Amino acid sequence: MNAALEALWRPGSVSAITVTASRTYDVIIGQDLLKDTGACVRRLSRAQTAVLVSDDQVHALYGQAVADSLAKEGIRVLSYVFPHGEEAKSAQTLFSLLEFMAEHGVTRTDLILALGGGVTGDLAGFAASIYLRGMSFIQLPTTLLAAVDSSVGGKTAVNLTAGKNLAGSFHQPLLVLCDTNTLASLPEQEFACGMAEVIKYGVLSDPELFRLVETQDAKNHLTQVIGRCVAIKRDLVQKDEFDTGSRQLLNLGHTLAHAVEKCSHFSVSHGAAVAIGLAAVARCAYAAGLTRESISERLENVLVRYGLPISCDFSNEQLCQVILTDKKRSGQSIHLAIPRQIGDTFLYTMDVDRLEEFYSHRCR
Amino acid sequence: MNAALEALWRPGSVSAITVTASRTYDVIIGQDLLKDTGACVRRLSRAQTAVLVSDDQVHALYGQAVADSLAKEGIRVLSYVFPHGEEAKSAQTLFSLLEFMAEHGVTRTDLILALGGGVTGDLAGFAASIYLRGMSFIQLPTTLLAAVDSSVGGKTAVNLTAGKNLAGSFHQPLLVLCDTNTLASLPEQEFACGMAEVIKYGVLSDPELFRLVETQDAKNHLTQVIGRCVAIKRDLVQKDEFDTGSRQLLNLGHTLAHAVEKCSHFSVSHGAAVAIGLAAVARCAYAAGLTRESISERLENVLVRYGLPISCDFSNEQLCQVILTDKKRSGQSIHLAIPRQIGDTFLYTMDVDRLEEFYSHRCR
Repeated sequence: MNAALEALWRPGSVSAITVTASRTYDVIIGQDLLKDTGACVRRLSRAQTAVLVSDDQVHALYGQAVADSLAKEGIRVLSYVFPHGEEAKSAQTLFSLLEFMAEHGVTRTDLILALGGGVTGDLAGFAASIYLRGMSFIQLPTTLLAAVDSSVGGKTAVNLTAGKNLAGSFHQPLLVLCDTNTLASLPEQEFACGMAEVIKYGVLSDPELFRLVETQDAKNHLTQVIGRCVAIKRDLVQKDEFDTGSRQLLNLGHTLAHAVEKCSHFSVSHGAAVAIGLAAVARCAYAAGLTRESISERLENVLVRYGLPISCDFSNEQLCQVILTDKKRSGQSIHLAIPRQIGDTFLYTMDVDRLEEFYSHRCR
Repeated sequence: MNAALEALWRPGSVSAITVTASRTYDVIIGQDLLKDTGACVRRLSRAQTAVLVSDDQVHALYGQAVADSLAKEGIRVLSYVFPHGEEAKSAQTLFSLLEFMAEHGVTRTDLILALGGGVTGDLAGFAASIYLRGMSFIQLPTTLLAAVDSSVGGKTAVNLTAGKNLAGSFHQPLLVLCDTNTLASLPEQEFACGMAEVIKYGVLSDPELFRLVETQDAKNHLTQVIGRCVAIKRDLVQKDEFDTGSRQLLNLGHTLAHAVEKCSHFSVSHGAAVAIGLAAVARCAYAAGLTRESISERLENVLVRYGLPISCDFSNEQLCQVILTDKKRSGQSIHLAIPRQIGDTFLYTMDVDRLEEFYSHRCR
């Protein structure tokens, strides 16, 4: 942990993971941390103004607590609130935020705080990366999905009409402060979405994490569960910050998931789609002889246990057509993350002509 | 020069300057180079598609030549043409270009070509930096201003309602290919704009360049003049790519220039404003005792020789008020580039309270 932050918490009361990418920063996980936002900002930055970005729902729940903690440190707070939902992750909201900051005289030594889920983090992080050609931002994730995935690693984006996350940047935060209290109040379905990614991390490289969520209720072990996921993501991001190689392992289950989301016009949530994608790639990899043992039974059991689906009704042809227009395709081949066993996944390059046959073995 | 490009030209027929920033790239200057665009792309990239971005005027003049040279190498050309003028450097044009690329299935291994002046380079470079979180682009500057300034160094941007260049990124090009034939056809006034920056470089750090443009017609020495300017900018960019220190020397004359542009609602061109700013800072620095000898006579003579203004009618109070809302201000002080003599400039930190008295000595 950054030495400037150490005095803020009792030893052992929070979990800290240090990410060393183009910027070195901490991910701090623990209970009741939002009230420490101001103290963290004061210790890490010389910002005079903090731009607090959140959607209307999250702002109503936690905006005041964060604003109070900033005001206590003498930091001016500018709140930018936008309507909740994926539609807000647009060029319109992005530039409305940028104009808002410019009108209020925000400088490049000031700071953005992204308080919310993935939409907020991606949007506010992107704004931070391009306002005056770059300023700092802090992630305050309030969903499990954001805590274990989008808030760490520096990917920011907005959607285009043509597709999700098609415009964005790599911009690492100054700090990720994950208050697990905010996750306890999540609706069941939103919590389940995050669990799909947690289970993905287990399959990817952590058999102990997989066993933990398989045998216990993840809700009772949030700090540990999130810490393990972040550590795995940290290791992959450090190896391949700009996503040209091993970071693609994080896409385990996501190739089909993105197609499911698109085919459903995004009525299937990202987490549910990832669950379907994980179940599919495990079955198909075994059927294709790419793995010697099947992990499907354990994997599908744990997905179902957390209220996640393992199949969908879209035809194989339809899904594969969408995959082939996906941005991750490069020429005649596609990179797939394939689980060898629980905790061991590898990247496999598949000819696009084989894709439809490969996915034909998924559970319908 | 990149070894892959060396076979393209007779030794000595072009001038090449290599910039080593977060990416290493060449600036190639010479006659009749646009016809070599396709060959350069083929040698530096595995792009299957090139997105040719230009305004309507430039596209009419040079679009076909560039497109032909790309087609000859089997590269698919997608032309994106926007209305000429500063208003196009907006969020609207930026996202319209991004949507255009997404609709046409452009991938991150494809390439953008920015054919035109500063607006085109800044806009297309910014698009390249955020499309799918970053793809390569090549600068094909067709104005003297773009050739000596905006095409080199990796600054990209669009304007916000609140001000110019307030959203952008640092994104170095893959190559800058400067065909001096395109500059010969520039309207007098546009050429003069570029000359203001050329003269700035002379004052900044190149007494020989200053003497050359003082005693000869710069038009007859374009390759040499541009090459010297680019080399100076290269040295400063290499020392301080992200503009936190010595790169600010490039702002010589620009502090007042930006205020003149704003006060005139941008009816005074950037080049004319820079000329006014250069003349002002030279006179004022001498009056304030910051330099021992005055360079004003030589400087003003050469500015006038190239058809540039050295004064304007805005009141000192008005100009200083605008400067103080400028983004370059940090707290209670402002960094000014001050010419010590022709070819020698230093950064000076001035208390904002002294600013109005300082500029009161400029020529009205």
